[in-house]
Amino acid sequence: MDHTFQFYMPTRIFQGSDCLSINSHHLKRQGRKALIVTSTNSTKLNGSLEDVINGLEKENIKYKLYDDCDDNPTIDLIQEAFDKNERENIDFIVGLGKGSSIDAAKAIGVLFRNRGISAREAFNMKNLRSIPIVAVPTTAGSGSEVTPYSIIADQAARIKKDFGQESYPKLAYLDPRYIYTADFESILNNAFDAFSHLVEGYLNLNATIFSDIIAERGLSLFTSLKQAFINQSLLPEQIDLLMTASTMGGIVISQTGTSLPHALGYVLSYDKGIPHGLATAAIYRGYLSQYKDSERLHRMLSILGFASTEGLMNYIDKIIDYSLDLSEAEISVYTRKMLSNQGKLKNHPDRVTRDQISMMYRNAIKK
Amino acid sequence: MDHTFQFYMPTRIFQGSDCLSINSHHLKRQGRKALIVTSTNSTKLNGSLEDVINGLEKENIKYKLYDDCDDNPTIDLIQEAFDKNERENIDFIVGLGKGSSIDAAKAIGVLFRNRGISAREAFNMKNLRSIPIVAVPTTAGSGSEVTPYSIIADQAARIKKDFGQESYPKLAYLDPRYIYTADFESILNNAFDAFSHLVEGYLNLNATIFSDIIAERGLSLFTSLKQAFINQSLLPEQIDLLMTASTMGGIVISQTGTSLPHALGYVLSYDKGIPHGLATAAIYRGYLSQYKDSERLHRMLSILGFASTEGLMNYIDKIIDYSLDLSEAEISVYTRKMLSNQGKLKNHPDRVTRDQISMMYRNAIKK
Repeated sequence: MDHTFQFYMPTRIFQGSDCLSINSHHLKRQGRKALIVTSTNSTKLNGSLEDVINGLEKENIKYKLYDDCDDNPTIDLIQEAFDKNERENIDFIVGLGKGSSIDAAKAIGVLFRNRGISAREAFNMKNLRSIPIVAVPTTAGSGSEVTPYSIIADQAARIKKDFGQESYPKLAYLDPRYIYTADFESILNNAFDAFSHLVEGYLNLNATIFSDIIAERGLSLFTSLKQAFINQSLLPEQIDLLMTASTMGGIVISQTGTSLPHALGYVLSYDKGIPHGLATAAIYRGYLSQYKDSERLHRMLSILGFASTEGLMNYIDKIIDYSLDLSEAEISVYTRKMLSNQGKLKNHPDRVTRDQISMMYRNAIKK
Repeated sequence: MDHTFQFYMPTRIFQGSDCLSINSHHLKRQGRKALIVTSTNSTKLNGSLEDVINGLEKENIKYKLYDDCDDNPTIDLIQEAFDKNERENIDFIVGLGKGSSIDAAKAIGVLFRNRGISAREAFNMKNLRSIPIVAVPTTAGSGSEVTPYSIIADQAARIKKDFGQESYPKLAYLDPRYIYTADFESILNNAFDAFSHLVEGYLNLNATIFSDIIAERGLSLFTSLKQAFINQSLLPEQIDLLMTASTMGGIVISQTGTSLPHALGYVLSYDKGIPHGLATAAIYRGYLSQYKDSERLHRMLSILGFASTEGLMNYIDKIIDYSLDLSEAEISVYTRKMLSNQGKLKNHPDRVTRDQISMMYRNAIKK
């Protein structure tokens, strides 16, 4: 093993019931006025918005609310959220909700820190800083609460890509109670995203001794949840574990980046409307069947309790359902798009050929 | 298991040969003028001082050198280092050398950030910030490069204690080459410090899922080095592993704090001149023999490849040599001192009695 490594993950993490209220004094250090970025409904229903507002009020922090964030925040939405609040003396942003809300919060924070730069300009720049971000996830999946990434949709180019700035949240409050009432379908979609972060970070050119130990533990947490996903029902303490596994997935990809399932899956969400986690799952058969480092692959399968790739794939087929048709013309377009974007392929340990990418898309078809 | 946890470790870590030169651009973000805090000789001999100076010069950063730091930096030394350089517009401090130099750098950084507060005043305050600290360790042991702690001696009170401010280094450059030429005796002393961080963090009331996975991996790295310590000789690749294990120990105690061997051992260094790592080792027989959570203890022993506490103790006795005599009067004084300082006992999972502490000191005697 190579002993050269880097590790960086500066977010202060709190996990547990009521962790925001218990540790609200850390909010105070972020400033005197916050912008809460969230989506319209869910955070009102699960009590998280109330918790955030109570926490801010307890610390005498003023706030504004932007609750128009959706599942696929666009460059225009980032610009709009900033424009509506630019005169508000916002010191920090609270990203509350799904990964998409936290991702949007990071991008909006960059505009507040770099006034005069538009969202579209920032999307194509590097090393811009953000005002402080506080992440309060209400799903277990994206890991965005502990990553520097911010996935934003560019409507013009019809793609989703990283906003390009390094915005680790300062604080992450992980309260699993917000997920206890979620429906199984959305838990599963998000869980597969988290699972995929662990797998793609483990089977990754940039894996380090630190990313490996965190990935291995995260995978073993998933092993303990295997039957619950078959049963389509998770107990509260299993959701606690899932939230920890998801944060571990985020820490892992903070070190390694994601790999092929994420890279190839985005377009299936964007063009075909398949939820992100399931779109990633769709790529797995092709991805794993041509993964070359069989020792590492088998170590991973053994942690997960499967004897072979086929065993894992049968399990995934049992729990994941979606339908997807792709014409050969579409496969050809998507493949060409992937090949023209080598940055997305660089974390995979081997060179990826045109035929392999087409094969992965072909294997994703499910009628 | 309790799913409530916190995790925080904001230092950006680089490990590998020549990692400072390769990643020197991160120095630039810390400011335009640095104070290098180090001790007189060793850092000149092992090439680390030259590397630091080259890195600063490459990034056009000015610097001043304070090289009077010793193994037991005192409050007076912290004050002197500041006084000599207070008009120099220092933006950040480079702590270079043993843990003591990095600890001193953190304390000095607090004085630069809080002008008008003396070292003695700061020693008794809380939540003061520091200017940025860059850590370049030349030993594998203290873990100071990734902890908020700064152990400083108070000559008046005849104790060593934490400076009390939370100063995580911004950057840590871990170049194992600086240790390749060190003598075995000092490698062993420092290695036992690192080992003890892993053990004390693992057998700790504040252990979390994150501190556990890092401690378990650090302990397993030590398992792979067991024979090398018996042979009194480490190959370069074993020193690389040792440096990683030491940093893991630092990350672990950043989450958990240390426990009884550190708490009880300090006075043996201060009063009896026993090197820190060995002083910690001296407490082990008493510490482990009365540790109550036998499941956790046996998991640890099993990672280390020992069937029993006695097996581990026999191994420690084989590799660690020191001599220590303590009178019953001294034991009584040290025990009373410990009991009056409950903060030092609070990380141990059980209440510690007067008899237990006296017994641990009595067991440390070795003529």
